Amino acid sequence: MPSFFTGFELAARLNAETRRRVAALARPPRCVALLDAANAGMAAYARRQQAFAGEAGIVLAPEPYPANPEAVMRRLAELAGDEEVDAVVTLYPLPAGVGALEAALALGAGKDVDGLHPENAGALALGAPARPPATAKACRLIAEELAGPLKGKEIVLVGASRIVGRPLASLLLDAEATVTITHAATRDLAAHTREADIVITAAGVPGLIGAGHLRDGATVLDVSINRGPHGLVGDVDVASLEGRSVTVTHVPDGVGPVTTACLLANIAEAAAGRAL
Amino acid sequence: MPSFFTGFELAARLNAETRRRVAALARPPRCVALLDAANAGMAAYARRQQAFAGEAGIVLAPEPYPANPEAVMRRLAELAGDEEVDAVVTLYPLPAGVGALEAALALGAGKDVDGLHPENAGALALGAPARPPATAKACRLIAEELAGPLKGKEIVLVGASRIVGRPLASLLLDAEATVTITHAATRDLAAHTREADIVITAAGVPGLIGAGHLRDGATVLDVSINRGPHGLVGDVDVASLEGRSVTVTHVPDGVGPVTTACLLANIAEAAAGRAL
Repeated sequence: MPSFFTGFELAARLNAETRRRVAALARPPRCVALLDAANAGMAAYARRQQAFAGEAGIVLAPEPYPANPEAVMRRLAELAGDEEVDAVVTLYPLPAGVGALEAALALGAGKDVDGLHPENAGALALGAPARPPATAKACRLIAEELAGPLKGKEIVLVGASRIVGRPLASLLLDAEATVTITHAATRDLAAHTREADIVITAAGVPGLIGAGHLRDGATVLDVSINRGPHGLVGDVDVASLEGRSVTVTHVPDGVGPVTTACLLANIAEAAAGRAL
Repeated sequence: MPSFFTGFELAARLNAETRRRVAALARPPRCVALLDAANAGMAAYARRQQAFAGEAGIVLAPEPYPANPEAVMRRLAELAGDEEVDAVVTLYPLPAGVGALEAALALGAGKDVDGLHPENAGALALGAPARPPATAKACRLIAEELAGPLKGKEIVLVGASRIVGRPLASLLLDAEATVTITHAATRDLAAHTREADIVITAAGVPGLIGAGHLRDGATVLDVSINRGPHGLVGDVDVASLEGRSVTVTHVPDGVGPVTTACLLANIAEAAAGRAL
């Protein structure tokens, strides 16, 4: 039978470390979360993040996006200069007319905790001390938790996005794994995933990865959260894994809690960096 | 029989384009090349680059590294502020005590033409308009020259360095290739390279890639220039390819000339950027 990984315990360990860091600061770190208040899913997500943040001693302050792109950019510039604000997250999708890069540049590298500012992405790429995107960091930590040291491990990523797949590839290469990055244009996905010790999928395609894609003993990290007719599902066709000895992260309670913990660690780090 | 690719013709096409860009500028672009004058190989390399640069209408001015790390950093800061200088390359190895990152930061993103400044590496990673490291850019162009559009192509990189392998992976993913990054800790290199349409090796290990590593019809880009008892050799054991139908880049006249052309294009781009 497949075994399922939930991220709560690993997240709790990371949050305990974050709480210790936060306790050493002069005041609780404050992160503004810009969001579309009319998007019920986004608002609910922000409330959950807010609760987790509170447990780690971090103030996460939701705030609606201003009404037009110019006002969003002005607000980001204000937040960049606000001494009381340590970090800002801009929940996706961004408002129409606001580009991810221009938003990150307006905010500045110091308060970017999503790895979206070129200086932060560049530090990661060059091996300088960096604050990796939370999802990528979470995947590395979970892979190590489930499979031990990654040196020499064969890892296949499904999805080459600039916020998950590509920075994650860099983190896994730092750990000396052999990394293959596949995506929608890959000729034969299964030929790659069947040879992998670890498959990490972030494609956003329900049922993409089934029993025929995995070898016995494989570990699968399912980053995707797709809304289906029967609730939330990832990219893995879990029903097909009946009787197979593979380990799969739970959707949404596998990668999700660890990603949140990594985001909180980034916020604490941003606050500590400003206090220097 | 294997067929061998030399980069002169592709380089000439790129240089013609650079000459056109340069002709539109108010004065010839000027790039200072800091080097260890006591290193005969480095000095000879700089003289060759200087000649190529001249043909493209670019002034490449060799200059010895100052005597100690503090003086090197001061000189970089001076060059950063010098209106007459458009770009600076710091030839490797850097003087003892000078870090690649601190040198790039002292120079600033605008005059970095090697993709070593975090802002430039980050722009590449995030998909923003970027000036990729010359070797990586050259490899993408040669791969397209030899194998056509890269979409869906299986490409295996040998070497995960931050100046070749990793930025190159990003450029190849932009072209929708499937990319595997292998290195010294990879368990079974041949199992990967035998499945590849294109192998790009930058490991610096003579004889690493032989007939058993390649399938018929494969294209091999050999970035390495190793000094052996019988002259310069790459990573490919060329003698072993007798009778095989593969295409291999010549060492040193394959990737080399195209890399120089890409560096010159980056210098022209830096000069054009300053003129705006």
